[in-house]
Amino acid sequence: MPTILGQNQYGKAENRVVKITRDGATHHIKDLNVSVSLSGDMDDVHYSGSNTNVLPTDTTKNTVYAFAKEHGVDSAEQFGIHLARHFVTSQEPIHRARIRIEEYAWERIDAPGSEGEHSFVRRGQETRLAQITYDGSSWEVVSGLRDLVVMNSTDSEFWGYVKDKYTTLKEAYDRILATEVSARWRYNWTGDAQDMPDWDTSYEQTKRHLLHAFAETYSLSLQQTLYQMGTRIIDHREEIDEVRFSLPNKHHFLVDLEPFGLKNDTADGAVYYAADRPYGLIEGTVLRDGCEARIPADLTNL
Amino acid sequence: MPTILGQNQYGKAENRVVKITRDGATHHIKDLNVSVSLSGDMDDVHYSGSNTNVLPTDTTKNTVYAFAKEHGVDSAEQFGIHLARHFVTSQEPIHRARIRIEEYAWERIDAPGSEGEHSFVRRGQETRLAQITYDGSSWEVVSGLRDLVVMNSTDSEFWGYVKDKYTTLKEAYDRILATEVSARWRYNWTGDAQDMPDWDTSYEQTKRHLLHAFAETYSLSLQQTLYQMGTRIIDHREEIDEVRFSLPNKHHFLVDLEPFGLKNDTADGAVYYAADRPYGLIEGTVLRDGCEARIPADLTNL
Amino acid sequence: MPTILGQNQYGKAENRVVKITRDGATHHIKDLNVSVSLSGDMDDVHYSGSNTNVLPTDTTKNTVYAFAKEHGVDSAEQFGIHLARHFVTSQEPIHRARIRIEEYAWERIDAPGSEGEHSFVRRGQETRLAQITYDGSSWEVVSGLRDLVVMNSTDSEFWGYVKDKYTTLKEAYDRILATEVSARWRYNWTGDAQDMPDWDTSYEQTKRHLLHAFAETYSLSLQQTLYQMGTRIIDHREEIDEVRFSLPNKHHFLVDLEPFGLKNDTADGAVYYAADRPYGLIEGTVLRDGCEARIPADLTNL
Amino acid sequence: MPTILGQNQYGKAENRVVKITRDGATHHIKDLNVSVSLSGDMDDVHYSGSNTNVLPTDTTKNTVYAFAKEHGVDSAEQFGIHLARHFVTSQEPIHRARIRIEEYAWERIDAPGSEGEHSFVRRGQETRLAQITYDGSSWEVVSGLRDLVVMNSTDSEFWGYVKDKYTTLKEAYDRILATEVSARWRYNWTGDAQDMPDWDTSYEQTKRHLLHAFAETYSLSLQQTLYQMGTRIIDHREEIDEVRFSLPNKHHFLVDLEPFGLKNDTADGAVYYAADRPYGLIEGTVLRDGCEARIPADLTNL
Repeated sequence: MPTILGQNQYGKAENRVVKITRDGATHHIKDLNVSVSLSGDMDDVHYSGSNTNVLPTDTTKNTVYAFAKEHGVDSAEQFGIHLARHFVTSQEPIHRARIRIEEYAWERIDAPGSEGEHSFVRRGQETRLAQITYDGSSWEVVSGLRDLVVMNSTDSEFWGYVKDKYTTLKEAYDRILATEVSARWRYNWTGDAQDMPDWDTSYEQTKRHLLHAFAETYSLSLQQTLYQMGTRIIDHREEIDEVRFSLPNKHHFLVDLEPFGLKNDTADGAVYYAADRPYGLIEGTVLRDGCEARIPADLTNL
Repeated sequence: MPTILGQNQYGKAENRVVKITRDGATHHIKDLNVSVSLSGDMDDVHYSGSNTNVLPTDTTKNTVYAFAKEHGVDSAEQFGIHLARHFVTSQEPIHRARIRIEEYAWERIDAPGSEGEHSFVRRGQETRLAQITYDGSSWEVVSGLRDLVVMNSTDSEFWGYVKDKYTTLKEAYDRILATEVSARWRYNWTGDAQDMPDWDTSYEQTKRHLLHAFAETYSLSLQQTLYQMGTRIIDHREEIDEVRFSLPNKHHFLVDLEPFGLKNDTADGAVYYAADRPYGLIEGTVLRDGCEARIPADLTNL
Repeated sequence: MPTILGQNQYGKAENRVVKITRDGATHHIKDLNVSVSLSGDMDDVHYSGSNTNVLPTDTTKNTVYAFAKEHGVDSAEQFGIHLARHFVTSQEPIHRARIRIEEYAWERIDAPGSEGEHSFVRRGQETRLAQITYDGSSWEVVSGLRDLVVMNSTDSEFWGYVKDKYTTLKEAYDRILATEVSARWRYNWTGDAQDMPDWDTSYEQTKRHLLHAFAETYSLSLQQTLYQMGTRIIDHREEIDEVRFSLPNKHHFLVDLEPFGLKNDTADGAVYYAADRPYGLIEGTVLRDGCEARIPADLTNL
Repeated sequence: MPTILGQNQYGKAENRVVKITRDGATHHIKDLNVSVSLSGDMDDVHYSGSNTNVLPTDTTKNTVYAFAKEHGVDSAEQFGIHLARHFVTSQEPIHRARIRIEEYAWERIDAPGSEGEHSFVRRGQETRLAQITYDGSSWEVVSGLRDLVVMNSTDSEFWGYVKDKYTTLKEAYDRILATEVSARWRYNWTGDAQDMPDWDTSYEQTKRHLLHAFAETYSLSLQQTLYQMGTRIIDHREEIDEVRFSLPNKHHFLVDLEPFGLKNDTADGAVYYAADRPYGLIEGTVLRDGCEARIPADLTNL
């Protein structure tokens, strides 16, 4: 046979699970999008189509919904840990399970005439992410977020760069710095139930540090801001060893209004054109000193 | 000639304008997407390609950016009124101008180590909408929002409906009611500068009434909720005569867990499958008694 | 009561139906996305939540699938006519039905080792559209397409336009003209079964005329090209009385390469930057002389 | 310092380049979306914001456009090779360049009254992909495609799978098999100009083999089809050593029409519901025997 099978995985992607918990008249929501990916002893199904070792993707979907009822959804990470453990320990041919979860946040509608606490509006800001991988012995939890759009309307410069024959850019001493943050952070948790982080608190604090570092950094380059955001997180969150960012530079170009006799000066409240494409794309990993990089470069750069 | 020209319009769509205003170290953002659409004496350009009456779409773009500097952006509606008046009054062949604006909201990042107030995170919830039309004599302002996702996790029923030979749906006495609100409301303002509504206040209050009516309505049908939302707005906002809604029913189906020996009961905190397609789509207009419907049915139902 | 109910409609949107027909080993596909919208005697469901007159949207979904089996899918238009007639004639409170259909085209994979004709690849070009409206007495059929991207790499000019104080655009004597055609055409068919157009043939020919007119028009403005496309269709297709277009001008800007010592001249094979936003948006209706415009302006301009 | 910098890269993403070549009255188009990503000696810009080693992303954009004029665009791969070599060899701090290109295909409009060959309609089927990486000594070219939607309306079964307590799926002996192919293939070309593949021919043939293998495989699982597609490519294209697929199972569920007294049998032309989410996701690599897997698993599974 001139060809062989390489790495492979399968499962049911994007199971949309909403779990309501009632605490008297007060309801709580967990709104998740859960993707299951399994790998193991799967040569036969590829070579001959024999499904002897294949747990159907439909079954993995059923398991997601049943587990939401049986175990509840304490946090996205905890829910993923339950699922990953189940697939690897209950199915001999499955050697590795990877659970990816997106979570959508809701906030309460505070309506005076509402009799209970069961009305919500979707928050709509960032999407929270979690990825749990288990191979029967070791755990890896990578959490993160995407679609968090931030802007500093000043305190950003860009100058002193390389100039070659294709360089036409003017140096900037007061520009808008805006980006849509996509971040992933890796926990150093190794599977010990005693040591498990409080995932929801960790998420909230990590997001807070990221936002504060963005706001507080006087920036000479988006790379510098990236590094400050990563450092801030690792300094304050001992449960995290690695942070990877993908930061599209959402360019806001000062519009040339001189043809119309107008001065468009940043110091005086300026008008910008928010461009779509192309965009600068800055990506990088920040590591706790002595730790290994394990978040794939490609996780963020597609 | 066997064919003739019917209604037509042209302009530059989706001009992305960001206006920063500086109040000392405190900055303010207006983040707009402005579309200009003009019509008038345009037969020649269609019949022969003569551009004698055509103000280039590129010029309408330049005007948008120049006006953001010259006049500032007090509100989306006010900005649209400036633009519409300009095109109709400055260009004889232009008889009607329609300005459509999307507005994206930002909130401040409250970072302890930040020295000024110039850091923002995009709110990410609904998109605010405004449409201003002027034909040289009368004004029409229609504002609105889209992408506002809301949910009641109880206090919704659906029963007593028509049953024909294709009906299989079971009646529901406790279901999730969720929708993604798209709404447009028409102001009765007729162009008098003295009477101009405070557009930003009107928007905030209208959104608040809409959310409260959604939360406070014990719902027997999504149509009932629609009507309550419209009525609440018209009752409380005398500047508004008409509200039109497009409400996709974002179905959350109770998952059948009986095959796994689990009872999935709404009273006890249930697990739902959030479906994509198909979806119910409920659309309707609510009018102040005695007023005419003018928001096109098709404005909301595409 | 200070408010009243205006125009309203409801139904199930985006029912994804795939119908396979087997002719021996040769299979045929119809791949549709069907949206049902009903209106009629619906005051009660809005005012009090009484569903006495409401055929559930779930039932309309079931009807779509059942009709695909019972009646087959000869064409999107024919299928919509069956459905619209059914809802209006079988349910007394329903006075009007509007069926909207998107159709996705597939072509055969011509594989030498395949034993039958049951393998397909999605064509992926334009999406075909149909809208059938019936109110118990009169019919209206509007068909169309969207997402058809076309380009002339020469034979387009733009000059002789109005210049005001905000005009900076240079005149162009050889430019790229590209657009993404969205078109709707209205049939003059009035419901007589004898006179029914061959819908599939009509669609193919209309698309062909539209493309040919685009290619053959030496264009001085996109409006001129729009009018030529509409005229060509009405001249050749007697079953069509009205065509409405929405044509975003997909700008391709000549890149300024002079800073790098390069001449970027259209005559010599040029390099263009394909821009996203903003874009010119040209919309208009072409009518058979003596006919009335009935396609809503807003059908195409959102 | 408690943190260190890990892997990082930067550049300008999504430069939309259209290159027209004129051969008398016959024009040719290359329509590309080019993303540049550079890495190297970039510690300072992250630690201190010093841009001394940073070639601006704006310059990389200019270079893309200038190279399209200077060198032309023979194929996406060839264009990417020029660019990657330029950045690594002209800038000492840049140690690695990765160029990613999407290509959109156009076909001619064959209009009888057109005087030249300069009118095109976008093909709209798959998007062609190329990724070229160069580190100063070794080259890696990975090409591919995405959005190629294929369907077999029969000759697919699924049975004999594992059944656990969460399994409810019925076995299927005649089902639709449909997927949206995302594929990447790695060339064994090592940079020798003599041995360079004819990239456009290689692409067309690889796509053809993929489609034929899909059509000709009587499938017992989507994994089997995946493996057959990979094997077919490697068997016929000696320039390719590795193929990686990501195949979402686009489920088409047989609709239960029994409640309406209708038999919905595959043998007799059936009606299916085309589902959106969740979906099975099958991913895997096929390798030439003896070759190493180098396409990252994450390239295809996001």
